[in-house]
Amino acid sequence: MKKPLILVTNDDGITAPGLRALVSFVKEIGEVVVVAPDSPQSGMGHAITIDNLLYSKKMTLDLDQDESTVEYSCSGTPADCVKLGLQELLDRKPDLCVSGINHGSNSSINVIYSGTMSAAIEAGIEGIPAIGFSLCDYKWEADFSPAKNFIQQIIREALENGIPTGVVLNVNIPKLEAKKIKGIKICRQARANWKEKFDKRTSPTGKEYYWLTGEFELLDKGEDTDEWALANGFISVVPTQFDLTAHHAIQTINNWKLN
Amino acid sequence: MKKPLILVTNDDGITAPGLRALVSFVKEIGEVVVVAPDSPQSGMGHAITIDNLLYSKKMTLDLDQDESTVEYSCSGTPADCVKLGLQELLDRKPDLCVSGINHGSNSSINVIYSGTMSAAIEAGIEGIPAIGFSLCDYKWEADFSPAKNFIQQIIREALENGIPTGVVLNVNIPKLEAKKIKGIKICRQARANWKEKFDKRTSPTGKEYYWLTGEFELLDKGEDTDEWALANGFISVVPTQFDLTAHHAIQTINNWKLN
Repeated sequence: MKKPLILVTNDDGITAPGLRALVSFVKEIGEVVVVAPDSPQSGMGHAITIDNLLYSKKMTLDLDQDESTVEYSCSGTPADCVKLGLQELLDRKPDLCVSGINHGSNSSINVIYSGTMSAAIEAGIEGIPAIGFSLCDYKWEADFSPAKNFIQQIIREALENGIPTGVVLNVNIPKLEAKKIKGIKICRQARANWKEKFDKRTSPTGKEYYWLTGEFELLDKGEDTDEWALANGFISVVPTQFDLTAHHAIQTINNWKLN
Repeated sequence: MKKPLILVTNDDGITAPGLRALVSFVKEIGEVVVVAPDSPQSGMGHAITIDNLLYSKKMTLDLDQDESTVEYSCSGTPADCVKLGLQELLDRKPDLCVSGINHGSNSSINVIYSGTMSAAIEAGIEGIPAIGFSLCDYKWEADFSPAKNFIQQIIREALENGIPTGVVLNVNIPKLEAKKIKGIKICRQARANWKEKFDKRTSPTGKEYYWLTGEFELLDKGEDTDEWALANGFISVVPTQFDLTAHHAIQTINNWKLN
């Protein structure tokens, strides 16, 4: 049987340890092609490059590189990487697109700002089953190995069952040793936001500037959410959609006096 | 009665005619503060500025500028503008945030890539009723005047009725004379995507590069969609949410063999 073709991308850049770990995990499952940003793209949301050009470079990065792993860097955003990969770089439609492993959580409202998930969503829009993986550890030297078996299990099930049309998976992994991870929970996105704080400073030439900082604020006590799962030692899987219609609100707005 | 405070932003930049038109429309309704990007941010999706600093400048732009209109440019993305406006620049919580008027459609799947809508969504996340407006005309010199009465009507209804929690409005306006606009329809987001094409070129120094181009592909024949409304002379209003959970898929994924 032909091995499945798996497109790997991320938002932390092609050299990020999280991507290198994911490549090593999926190499055991399928034929792998990497198309990833040549520089960090965290917080890029679903940005695409419209008014600028894109560069792409074929490269070899892994020490254990074998002939079957083809890698490309791209000067664009995560969504650009997926578009360029699908349209120009891959010789056939991939069976799956995986994005990550992100250094840091993309649970709850963070999905909105996430470059990792934007890549997965872009693949989903183009009809490719897709999964974004994130580890709740922002460190560059984070340990991705405890996630290995869980990630491979989720990928194998996705390849076997398919993912419903219009849905991509947002997988977050708690920062725990493998034996302390209690399992995998299918969840909804918790209601939360960021309480922003701007750190106002003055440049050496006297110009005022700001750094965006903030504190995460969970507004949801549900036990069926991704935040609950992660806080209780589970890996969270949120089926995520790109039809943003708030169907329940159509009736309400229909009662407005319009026209 | 105190006039409502309305935060105006966009993604085409603070000098864009679409924003200048929107400012003139909302000045007749409330007290206006503008916080908008200092350069075009189209296609930025929900990007935020994490690893760089932000500049903001208080400025005066309108010829008919009166004391009540305060304007700030910001070096960041549309979502940054809203965060900075709400947290640092405005002296109280606005009653409404409006974004646009975008030069070009943000209907159907375009909502995902839209900087205009990301600003509105950011305000929605922070609990501010919010609406994104887009005109289906990409030209810089597009005529925004036919939209005036419709936009004011939608804004007045939003201020009077409020917008359901967790919902922001995505309003698209067809490129038509006012008398040819048939009315306003509350819609769902049409299923569609972009068929990408990359235009491959060679730089003067011999380096290959790509331009992202593409053709819009409507995959939805429903008559309750935004695309149908626009094609038939209506203004489309899609209630849009930032809970991306595909609730219908939770049961399906729960049947996977995981753990």
